[in-house]
Amino acid sequence: MELIDGKKISAEIKQEIALEVQKMKDSGAKVPHLAAVLVGHDGGSETYVAHKVKACELIGFKSTLIRYEDDVTEEELLKTVDKLNNDDDIDGFIVQLPLPKHISEEKIIEAIDPGKDVDGFHPVNVGKMSVGLPAFVSATPAGIVELIKRYNIETSGKHCVVIGRSNIVGRPVSILLSQKADFGDATVTVCHSRTKNLKEHCLSADIIIAALGMPGFLKGDMVKEGAVVIDVGTTRLKSDKTKSGFKLHGDVDFDEVSPKCSYITPVPGGVGPMTIVSLLMNTLKAAKNRN
Amino acid sequence: MELIDGKKISAEIKQEIALEVQKMKDSGAKVPHLAAVLVGHDGGSETYVAHKVKACELIGFKSTLIRYEDDVTEEELLKTVDKLNNDDDIDGFIVQLPLPKHISEEKIIEAIDPGKDVDGFHPVNVGKMSVGLPAFVSATPAGIVELIKRYNIETSGKHCVVIGRSNIVGRPVSILLSQKADFGDATVTVCHSRTKNLKEHCLSADIIIAALGMPGFLKGDMVKEGAVVIDVGTTRLKSDKTKSGFKLHGDVDFDEVSPKCSYITPVPGGVGPMTIVSLLMNTLKAAKNRN
Repeated sequence: MELIDGKKISAEIKQEIALEVQKMKDSGAKVPHLAAVLVGHDGGSETYVAHKVKACELIGFKSTLIRYEDDVTEEELLKTVDKLNNDDDIDGFIVQLPLPKHISEEKIIEAIDPGKDVDGFHPVNVGKMSVGLPAFVSATPAGIVELIKRYNIETSGKHCVVIGRSNIVGRPVSILLSQKADFGDATVTVCHSRTKNLKEHCLSADIIIAALGMPGFLKGDMVKEGAVVIDVGTTRLKSDKTKSGFKLHGDVDFDEVSPKCSYITPVPGGVGPMTIVSLLMNTLKAAKNRN
Repeated sequence: MELIDGKKISAEIKQEIALEVQKMKDSGAKVPHLAAVLVGHDGGSETYVAHKVKACELIGFKSTLIRYEDDVTEEELLKTVDKLNNDDDIDGFIVQLPLPKHISEEKIIEAIDPGKDVDGFHPVNVGKMSVGLPAFVSATPAGIVELIKRYNIETSGKHCVVIGRSNIVGRPVSILLSQKADFGDATVTVCHSRTKNLKEHCLSADIIIAALGMPGFLKGDMVKEGAVVIDVGTTRLKSDKTKSGFKLHGDVDFDEVSPKCSYITPVPGGVGPMTIVSLLMNTLKAAKNRN
């Protein structure tokens, strides 16, 4: 069993990007500039955005954080999106979700210039990704594919079971892995809450991507010998054994499953660290596209 | 075994639409108006477009056919698209594919106003469909789902194998059938040219959608007893037994497979007749959206 070390890979990629940024600087070019819009004071959102901004600084990107209180109007937010769309210095930007209920996330997302939509949530990017055209792919599916690439895991002709059909993980990763592409060409089954015989599907899988958000859901008797298991779960449960008072739990029962795997991602330290890196890679791409 | 009669269903739907159009007329409202742009003299394209225009007339839609020779420039075509986008009388329009090689189909499709894109090929519509938002769904996948609805075929929790991952059939139908929706919620496996153990996947399927374009590919020993089989194949092969000199062949070996099925679509007369009906339904929807 080999551990897929997302922490290590993400550090490597950050270094690669930092090198590119240094080259840009050396050649007198503008460095990539990511803006993040944060509404309100949700603890999770504040942490995510802070991590993103910090990551930008570390690799040499310029970053801008725009904050609003919970009572910002949809109109104000749309104006900000429009301003960012038209700001030549901004290469890409994100509006951190979720937004307060009085604001339509759909409307905000669709207002973003698809060329600056480094979160990859705009329907144009989802549609282009789906038909195999160049597009910004959202962070988690892009991170999963990047891990598969970096570990050179064979996907062509393999049976891949994706558990979960969410728009931000299950659906896009199922499309990417079944497309005609390097590190694609898998036969992909999408399973979800209505699936019967889930165990049977999993037992026939060469690759399992667990993205349903139920801690420890995937048990040892659901996985065949030699399978690759990617754990996308990140459920926070209270814990008295950590300083923060909580512990991240994946969707995989690691103790039971890992001995049977050829490769497996841990939680934390697997897919998680890759999501910010995907955002940075998208921002670098956006900057290059615009130059 | 029950035959899924696409010819009958499409006739019924056309009648339903004709009734709606009559009501629109009676109430003094504008009737739906579909425009089709046809470039060159490809035999298939000419036939398809002629059928579409004729179907519009029969149900009371207004239709406009715009023709260009093969040497039309991309610029001219983009101007036409722009004109149609801004023509208030046009509710929806299509640019018949394929286009001559000097014209970028991608560019043309992306120039179409997504609200008038009744072919459902614009990335915005593909993306919205993919995330489960209201969208124009392209003709063949929409027609397949409509047949399943009209025959009240249970899909929830069923295992559905889609053979083929094309952007116009396999991919979208796989997404639609696995979404949280009435006549969705299936566990869907997308198989393709790189799939190993295709027979095994098919034998476990409650529903098989064959959309690979290989005449007679799906044999009796690949289908389990009681399966639903949807045949999307429409390969024209020469024949001395028909007036036209050719015969349509599906992807299913009908003689072998049909005795095992609970439901099966014939070729011709199954999915085929539904595609034009899907276009008409999209145009009606576009007209309603715009009113």
